[in-house]
Amino acid sequence: LKESTIQDTSLSQEERELEYIFHPRSVALVGVTSDPANLWGQGFLKGLLDFGYSGQIYPINPKASQILGLKVYPSLSDVPGPVDYVISMIPAPLTPQLIEDCGAKGVKVVHLFTAGFGETGEEEGKRLEAELLAIARRVGVRLIGPNCMGIHYAKSRVTFDMGIPEEAKESGNISFLSQSGANAISLVYMGSFRGFRFNKVVSYGNAIDLNESDFLEHFAADPDTEIIASYIEGIKDGSRFRRALMEAAAVKPVIMLKGGRTVAGVGAVDSHTGALAGSEEIWDVLLKQAGAIRVYSMDELADVLIAFSHLPPLAGRNVGVIGTGGGASVEAADLCESAGLFVPALPPEIRSQFREFTPVAGTSVRNPVDTISMFIPQELSRTIELVAGYARIDFLIFQMELGMSFLQGPGRIIVETAQEVLIETARRIEKPIVMVFRYGGSPQGISLLAESQERCIEAGLPVFPSIERAALAISRFISYHEARNSA
Amino acid sequence: LKESTIQDTSLSQEERELEYIFHPRSVALVGVTSDPANLWGQGFLKGLLDFGYSGQIYPINPKASQILGLKVYPSLSDVPGPVDYVISMIPAPLTPQLIEDCGAKGVKVVHLFTAGFGETGEEEGKRLEAELLAIARRVGVRLIGPNCMGIHYAKSRVTFDMGIPEEAKESGNISFLSQSGANAISLVYMGSFRGFRFNKVVSYGNAIDLNESDFLEHFAADPDTEIIASYIEGIKDGSRFRRALMEAAAVKPVIMLKGGRTVAGVGAVDSHTGALAGSEEIWDVLLKQAGAIRVYSMDELADVLIAFSHLPPLAGRNVGVIGTGGGASVEAADLCESAGLFVPALPPEIRSQFREFTPVAGTSVRNPVDTISMFIPQELSRTIELVAGYARIDFLIFQMELGMSFLQGPGRIIVETAQEVLIETARRIEKPIVMVFRYGGSPQGISLLAESQERCIEAGLPVFPSIERAALAISRFISYHEARNSA
Repeated sequence: LKESTIQDTSLSQEERELEYIFHPRSVALVGVTSDPANLWGQGFLKGLLDFGYSGQIYPINPKASQILGLKVYPSLSDVPGPVDYVISMIPAPLTPQLIEDCGAKGVKVVHLFTAGFGETGEEEGKRLEAELLAIARRVGVRLIGPNCMGIHYAKSRVTFDMGIPEEAKESGNISFLSQSGANAISLVYMGSFRGFRFNKVVSYGNAIDLNESDFLEHFAADPDTEIIASYIEGIKDGSRFRRALMEAAAVKPVIMLKGGRTVAGVGAVDSHTGALAGSEEIWDVLLKQAGAIRVYSMDELADVLIAFSHLPPLAGRNVGVIGTGGGASVEAADLCESAGLFVPALPPEIRSQFREFTPVAGTSVRNPVDTISMFIPQELSRTIELVAGYARIDFLIFQMELGMSFLQGPGRIIVETAQEVLIETARRIEKPIVMVFRYGGSPQGISLLAESQERCIEAGLPVFPSIERAALAISRFISYHEARNSA
Repeated sequence: LKESTIQDTSLSQEERELEYIFHPRSVALVGVTSDPANLWGQGFLKGLLDFGYSGQIYPINPKASQILGLKVYPSLSDVPGPVDYVISMIPAPLTPQLIEDCGAKGVKVVHLFTAGFGETGEEEGKRLEAELLAIARRVGVRLIGPNCMGIHYAKSRVTFDMGIPEEAKESGNISFLSQSGANAISLVYMGSFRGFRFNKVVSYGNAIDLNESDFLEHFAADPDTEIIASYIEGIKDGSRFRRALMEAAAVKPVIMLKGGRTVAGVGAVDSHTGALAGSEEIWDVLLKQAGAIRVYSMDELADVLIAFSHLPPLAGRNVGVIGTGGGASVEAADLCESAGLFVPALPPEIRSQFREFTPVAGTSVRNPVDTISMFIPQELSRTIELVAGYARIDFLIFQMELGMSFLQGPGRIIVETAQEVLIETARRIEKPIVMVFRYGGSPQGISLLAESQERCIEAGLPVFPSIERAALAISRFISYHEARNSA
């Protein structure tokens, strides 16, 4: 617990309460299973142990005495010390009594992993939700969920999944509020592998108490959050949310995936978190007015986060594209311009410098630049420098072919050397380089792809799976800065 | 050479000439290098040897006596037997004399791999093209190219790349005309790994003699071609092409990627093959009138080919989606409906059958169906059967999560068993199942992804890298059949 943060008097009561949520001094896991064959039943506990959570951990289960080497308590009231945070894994009908017990114990927040409430569409589930909320208000306990995965916060070493990658244990500048638990976990994993990192992540499910507006307000005020990502299926209080969104997007980029924007999507939202998805038109207007960045899939969300995490604000939309293959160059030009970027032709003075070391036949030095010489290290860095040297170019996309000829032997050495030269050149020049690997899908080539991506991501280069996805994400990133500059 | 095809009197002179192109009895490689360190300089020769081409192969090089174990001839006129097909790898200025020599030798077709002609934008290149064409017409030799990779045709065991995968040596039902050599090779590789196969493939570059209309007409008439794929940057004769396209699309699906549809794309086309890209509006109208299927990237081309290769004509746009995760289900519903599919809710009688074996909490049986029971084999097949059993459903998409918990141990066995059950169930039910693997991008998980894809593709299931790409490709496939049924 960072006492300094908690006692910061510039924070409102609400904000301080949310800081408590992310800094529990002790966690009790109510209903954790003692059966090791239950693959997910020990997930939260394993996650805390694996992460090295430094507070007290109290497994609660009336039928076990020890789980994963920890002493088990039969009930919450049997726990000797104070409990800040409770994870509920017991069946829904037992949760009202649990909240009563939490009140008696002085628990601050209960994360209800437990599902089977309003999202079932059945009356009993909705009644239980109302009952839970009434008890929580009466006894002074806040609720996350039900039907959710709770929080992941590297600074407190708390997480919602067992065996998260080492990279997910690093702190970052993105906070993510997600109505879906799987999306929360999935984005943390994507970040680990693709090179973006999180500050606070919360999966909040049915949101009967703490909801999207609470977390949005908290992330907007949180000094360690620079970028806000969000997956929202429905909202609880339209006018509060609208205000929270306008205020958050005024100070930080807010990137939003709205779940339930089609007839079937709205139906799926209803069975998932019981939320009212709302009209697509209203959402569209609201997000535009607020200046939030809208995305349409988890992949797009990850792509945009890579742009925001890795790129400096760009002066304009002009991209220099370097790669191999005439057809690939034509496609790159078309896909970049379709996404709202420009691919300006290089001027004659730069083209003639290319011709000092690049043969005319089978190459193009127009932009996209398609030269076979990029597999000669000194010509590769000169190629990049020449493109970056054109004043109109704002950033570069390098599409590297990882075809069959590069899998082993001299081909593999060529491609590894090219990547090292590229990374070294990227450090030296002032304009950012974005990587795209063209990969034909061969099972044998997959390891070269994985290794190439890792090498570039470790060196801090943004890597995208296709020109199309790179261009779309970067175009949205530029639009955000254009709107702010013109506002 | 299939004499029966050549002498089929229902074929026109032109068509018979093109059959000759794809059935050469002997190939001479003029300018093949003797330097093994030149990674690509022996590519065509290695390709023919690796494929086991059964005709005569004549390497031509005045400075070598043996290359890769074959006797080398100093010039074409020194070759003892007849030569049907010549691959030119000599510099552009030497090619006019080569065509003269080919005429003297009775060569039928010259594939000019040689580049450095009109695509350079220089006057000398354009002049050379005109000279080549004049000589070719005079001496009765047809030309493919220049600036291209030529042909790949499994039945004749000829190909344009060394070391192609074994799957690319199998014959299929797709023929592909591509103005780009790299796109031609790339699509053949994609087909190998993703499960579609080719009949005839031609990369034809600058198209100074044989052009897009020749190949389109030939593929339209070719009884072994069921699907025509095309990558075109510009056309030589508008009215002939329009007629060829209308006639081809009337008898077979024609899927087209048009390179050069933006300002920068048109510029890139000019430096690539020197073609005039033409107005985007005219192309759009032309393709719509003809009923051709337009795609916007090589990935989309491959996706649509998977749909046409693997799926029977579908009765409608209603998809049953099965997968794990509430957020993923909402996203799947939204992306399917955005792409023009429908995700109809399952009726109460089917939902109640699910409730016999599926718990209410944390699941949805609405469509998308999100149940944890899919990792119990008998419940997995029952889940698929129940969704397929709803009369309104035309086909199924199964999105399988390949998260970290499945990489090894019991998780890996669960996912492998689930795939086997799925393949077995897919054989039994009457509605097609389309696979999408959700993969978080972990380097460790890549092998599970590759193995899962291979297993399903080998079993004949169409596999797509995302719900979005699956939905878009299948929607285009359905649109094609709808248009034909209403015509």
